[in-house]
Amino acid sequence: MAQTNLVTRVRWEIARAFSLRGKVILAVYCGADSLCLAHVVIALAPQLHLQSVIAHLNHGIRGAAADADADFVQAFAAQHGVPCHIEKANVPKLAAEMNLSLETAARMARYDFLMRAADQHEAKIVAVAHHADDQAETVLHRLMRGTGLAGLRGMAAQSPMPGAPHLTLLRPLLRFGRKDIEQYCADCGLQPRHDATNDDLAHTRNRIRHELLPQLEQYNPGIRAVLARLADSATTDFEIIEYATQQAFSSIATQTEAHAIVFDRVTWRNLPVGLQRATLRHAVSQLKGHLTDLKFSAIEEARDVLTSDATTGEIALLADVRVRVSAGAFVVGRLVISN
Amino acid sequence: MAQTNLVTRVRWEIARAFSLRGKVILAVYCGADSLCLAHVVIALAPQLHLQSVIAHLNHGIRGAAADADADFVQAFAAQHGVPCHIEKANVPKLAAEMNLSLETAARMARYDFLMRAADQHEAKIVAVAHHADDQAETVLHRLMRGTGLAGLRGMAAQSPMPGAPHLTLLRPLLRFGRKDIEQYCADCGLQPRHDATNDDLAHTRNRIRHELLPQLEQYNPGIRAVLARLADSATTDFEIIEYATQQAFSSIATQTEAHAIVFDRVTWRNLPVGLQRATLRHAVSQLKGHLTDLKFSAIEEARDVLTSDATTGEIALLADVRVRVSAGAFVVGRLVISN
Repeated sequence: MAQTNLVTRVRWEIARAFSLRGKVILAVYCGADSLCLAHVVIALAPQLHLQSVIAHLNHGIRGAAADADADFVQAFAAQHGVPCHIEKANVPKLAAEMNLSLETAARMARYDFLMRAADQHEAKIVAVAHHADDQAETVLHRLMRGTGLAGLRGMAAQSPMPGAPHLTLLRPLLRFGRKDIEQYCADCGLQPRHDATNDDLAHTRNRIRHELLPQLEQYNPGIRAVLARLADSATTDFEIIEYATQQAFSSIATQTEAHAIVFDRVTWRNLPVGLQRATLRHAVSQLKGHLTDLKFSAIEEARDVLTSDATTGEIALLADVRVRVSAGAFVVGRLVISN
Repeated sequence: MAQTNLVTRVRWEIARAFSLRGKVILAVYCGADSLCLAHVVIALAPQLHLQSVIAHLNHGIRGAAADADADFVQAFAAQHGVPCHIEKANVPKLAAEMNLSLETAARMARYDFLMRAADQHEAKIVAVAHHADDQAETVLHRLMRGTGLAGLRGMAAQSPMPGAPHLTLLRPLLRFGRKDIEQYCADCGLQPRHDATNDDLAHTRNRIRHELLPQLEQYNPGIRAVLARLADSATTDFEIIEYATQQAFSSIATQTEAHAIVFDRVTWRNLPVGLQRATLRHAVSQLKGHLTDLKFSAIEEARDVLTSDATTGEIALLADVRVRVSAGAFVVGRLVISN
């Protein structure tokens, strides 16, 4: 079949963005998005030095319909000569046992499954079919709940796999909208089935997709693209902030011993407020390995003292992490309890 | 009258945030927001070393009702022993002459009026009554149209007056919601009138206020606070990015002559993508004094070459600003036409 312009464009853009090679686990359900993903990656495999494995998790929610979905995926894999890894989970049981929503339990089961599939097939890459409309929904969902720059980044095109940082999670379709993806399937003669799993699972997500986004489209028909672009610009801006934090920290703070970091107080005071906060948080993260329990109010209390004329004092950032103030410097130190 | 907790809190927070002293022009209409603003600033004036002048512009849109509003403001000023500066504009005529919407023409007339009032009274400060609900609407409006971090900052609590940078524009109520402000008025025995100007002028704004925000409140009743907090965090993050751009630029770029800036290409390539873009834009701004006509695509074209292995080449950022590429450096230069 002659390639249409759209098919050429989708493949070209994905080939250009795909920097990894090796075995890739393709998460495939039976909707247009994951069929498109599998079809593109399988077509590009020789050129990109990839070996595809299709993986499908039956969530154990929809009985016979879900079994038919699994058969469909199996047939698709066989047709394209690609190995297929299918498992069946019991998401309702998992949700009940762990006291989670079906939606959360299903996501957990899915990522857990993909991780095991990758390890079993000795793959280092997992690709999922999230697209630009999913990205817009994610950003909007976070905006509604309340978020900052980190959350506005939405889903990453490439990131370590949650819970399995030795794997790389790719979202090759993130720049393509649902309509383009459906058109790709039509142009390539792919016949997706309606994926009812989403209808069952993602209540809030479905309300955002079917009620809120159409309402917002009355104000701006291009709202999905606007939200996806916001995710892009937030990603780039967030990188700058991480870089600036690192630069500022290494120029004004010195880890003098395992449990103490000394700051040049004068230089720290001249940083923008956001970097004052970020460098303090960075110090805590260096000393503790995480930021759990660190409150915004504790950081602000420390800033109040450190930006004042006080030349002595001690502020608790955490129960076991203190800031000790002196005239030209301050120390962020971790208390070590000796038995 | 004994002060309620709310009145004490509003005054305390505003007193704490008010760092400027001298004569201040208070933009007063007859709604709760600007009455509250005037009442707070007048009450704090001795303590903060401020001298208040009330300023009111009759937009010339609503005939007798607008005249009654002006009389109301005049009476309020007299009652509080504060000078009052009232002018009447013809916004519909201005809108027609300049081919602007009534909303845009009114805003222009208002800022122009405040600027003239400030200059006439030799004031350096202008205070307006935008509050947290206005901020939420501004952020939402920009989100709907499409914006990045700069736009998400919303309105600034303190900024140079647009078009009159010798004046400082303050928004002391930006942290208080409409309900608190109405309660402040009730607690202080102030009797605001309904300000119909807004109904007339701000069509999109009113749709966002009366239709969209109530829709979003069905998803999150605290959506207004969420959007106002987003503006706060975007403001802090944006400061970091401006600081990081400045730091990166001064460490890798040198203005060797009036029309040329030399970059260390190797160090520039190691910057995060966002800082690669920002430092190029900064160079153009240094050479031209503005960024008018600079396209995102031109910056990306330059980045494509500069991050490649090319050791020669020239890319146009603008008709008269070029990037000349060499192995370890590149020059952003402005063409100077000699007659």
